[in-house]
Amino acid sequence: MANLQAIRYSRGKLEVLDQLKLPHEHHYDEVSTSEEAFDSIKSMRVRGAPAIAIVAALGHGVELHNGSCTASSSEETISYIESRLDYLKQSRPTAVDLTNAITHLKNTVRSIDAQNNGTVGRDAIISAYVAAAEEIFRKDTETNLSIGEHGSKWLLENAPTKSADGKVSVLTHCNTGSLATSGHGTALGIIRSLHSGGHLHHAFCTETRPYNQGSRLTAFELVYEGIPSTLITDSMAGALFATKKTEKNIAAVIVGADRVVRNGDTANKIGTYALAVLAKYHGVKFIVAAPTTSIDLQTETGAGIKIEERKAEELTQITGAVVGKDGKVDVTRTERVATAHQGIAVWNPAFDVTPAELIDAVVTERGVVVKGADGVFDFKDIMPERWANVVGK
Amino acid sequence: MANLQAIRYSRGKLEVLDQLKLPHEHHYDEVSTSEEAFDSIKSMRVRGAPAIAIVAALGHGVELHNGSCTASSSEETISYIESRLDYLKQSRPTAVDLTNAITHLKNTVRSIDAQNNGTVGRDAIISAYVAAAEEIFRKDTETNLSIGEHGSKWLLENAPTKSADGKVSVLTHCNTGSLATSGHGTALGIIRSLHSGGHLHHAFCTETRPYNQGSRLTAFELVYEGIPSTLITDSMAGALFATKKTEKNIAAVIVGADRVVRNGDTANKIGTYALAVLAKYHGVKFIVAAPTTSIDLQTETGAGIKIEERKAEELTQITGAVVGKDGKVDVTRTERVATAHQGIAVWNPAFDVTPAELIDAVVTERGVVVKGADGVFDFKDIMPERWANVVGK
Repeated sequence: MANLQAIRYSRGKLEVLDQLKLPHEHHYDEVSTSEEAFDSIKSMRVRGAPAIAIVAALGHGVELHNGSCTASSSEETISYIESRLDYLKQSRPTAVDLTNAITHLKNTVRSIDAQNNGTVGRDAIISAYVAAAEEIFRKDTETNLSIGEHGSKWLLENAPTKSADGKVSVLTHCNTGSLATSGHGTALGIIRSLHSGGHLHHAFCTETRPYNQGSRLTAFELVYEGIPSTLITDSMAGALFATKKTEKNIAAVIVGADRVVRNGDTANKIGTYALAVLAKYHGVKFIVAAPTTSIDLQTETGAGIKIEERKAEELTQITGAVVGKDGKVDVTRTERVATAHQGIAVWNPAFDVTPAELIDAVVTERGVVVKGADGVFDFKDIMPERWANVVGK
Repeated sequence: MANLQAIRYSRGKLEVLDQLKLPHEHHYDEVSTSEEAFDSIKSMRVRGAPAIAIVAALGHGVELHNGSCTASSSEETISYIESRLDYLKQSRPTAVDLTNAITHLKNTVRSIDAQNNGTVGRDAIISAYVAAAEEIFRKDTETNLSIGEHGSKWLLENAPTKSADGKVSVLTHCNTGSLATSGHGTALGIIRSLHSGGHLHHAFCTETRPYNQGSRLTAFELVYEGIPSTLITDSMAGALFATKKTEKNIAAVIVGADRVVRNGDTANKIGTYALAVLAKYHGVKFIVAAPTTSIDLQTETGAGIKIEERKAEELTQITGAVVGKDGKVDVTRTERVATAHQGIAVWNPAFDVTPAELIDAVVTERGVVVKGADGVFDFKDIMPERWANVVGK
């Protein structure tokens, strides 16, 4: 079965997976104009910082390729592109990746024009734009694929336990970017790479309360791609690690990261920290998959990370597709239901911080970082320029 | 506010909390006949082994007290009582506590009659029955209250951390019998006793996936009784233990038990084991509250406990009260919704086994048992007769 992608693209054609219909239906919207891209982003049919930037960049690229720009001069062409990008920026004004992508695309068309003294013409500018938008998409895919390759190689070399035929079983938490990125994902990218290389015995995913990204999104992806997989509640991870037989013989927990700080302390979806403690207790490896763009060298330790607390209803209510009296799920009908006493106070931190001492490896697109003899992660070698800028020589 | 009771009784009157309406409504059904008791049990409006036995025993007692028996002889009276009890037994034929209670009640009326050579008469037999039924209820309450007292005293003496004013914060998991028993509960009984003694700083409860006994039942009880309390997802326990400030400074995890075996290994609701590992890692005490009737001396270690696995839909679907567009919960309308991808395989063990090495104390109605210098629990002193019968001198 094909690799699940949130974004399908070939020059002149863009299709975006409608994540609002998941996990009950998988439907792609065709996005041929900036207006359609704007609408996909605004309505949350596409989510995740890299995915939003890619859809905006390529959405405008598709209309340009298909002749939406009728300008006659270079200056008019650039002005048209800039106005469309300014419009797209308003679909999610707070998204940093989107802003960065738009700045980069504007600079690209301005510089190709400047290099040619304003004489390059409409079609050459459009070609330069389309190439730059495609490069954003390609780079994101490349980053994810590299993480997958580095991570699977490291795990196979360092697995504390394997099946009789040399394969590994793993557990993942939350949904790590395969639906929020170009398509491969970070932690799930490592699982994909293990599977495509014939090295995956079994993948377990937690449901990831309270927002169920695991049971809704990760479970959908694993089933869609035919990866041997099983869903558990977050509370079952301990019992899973204690069960040392067949596919439940877990070699590693693989998670993504909201932010990895300078010493390796990692903020990620709530529940990650408990999995790290349980992994340590059971001799299971704990792997964080993160592109170098998620590594924050400015913050020294996890103590500097502020934890967002979210509202009670996210935990005491849930939305799902209605199950009929006949036990069949009606994907056309969703309801929100209260599953807890509505009067109870709730603590709902969105993420937690896993200290570096519980993490065995941080896998980036540039390679795997492990702790030195002093028990500290050192990111200097994989990102020397940023290290020099932020930390010093 | 009053102590929440699943069963309210005074001679001639029995009211039973309708647990099917929880947590959205709390409504008591009046149970005045064996038929009404049968219906409460059969329809699951009352749940939990001790509660079922109490409702059957007292339900028949109420109708007897109110004159349902028109027999003229002792023999006819006994025959009437036996036929009603045989009928009640069919409401839940597999319930051991119900069977035991019925056997005990039959023996009681037979023996009072035998002691008086069959001349005791209808009213004396009815009085003996009612007294025996009330004794079953009273004993269960007494057991729960004793567990509460022993447990709170032990924790106050052994708490690794307290608030500035000498109080303790605790975490509990699942719903531990307060709705399944005469009313005080086992683990929740300890929390009630801490609270009523002025020693409770704050109680946290997990939602207890997948069946949400914590968010539906325990949260309801805590709010109903005005106990300072907060709901978390199971995945947040680790982050909670790592947060050492104000009410989140947790002294102990207190759980019930499905079964405690001879060496202290304890089978309980899935997720208990992970909490025990997390508690050990964070220096939090781990307390099992269990009446001696839950201690199984026949089974030597946890390895002898078989784990029941339940169906996938319990984890991938959930029933709740519908939340309207205005955000209000409509308690009259429930829907079952699918909250996960329905095609994913599921592992759904109903409970797990916590090894004795992770347990600090087993609290019974006869006192608290801790491990000896050899790291082993010894239940011989609190239950010498059963120990002699099962294990030997």
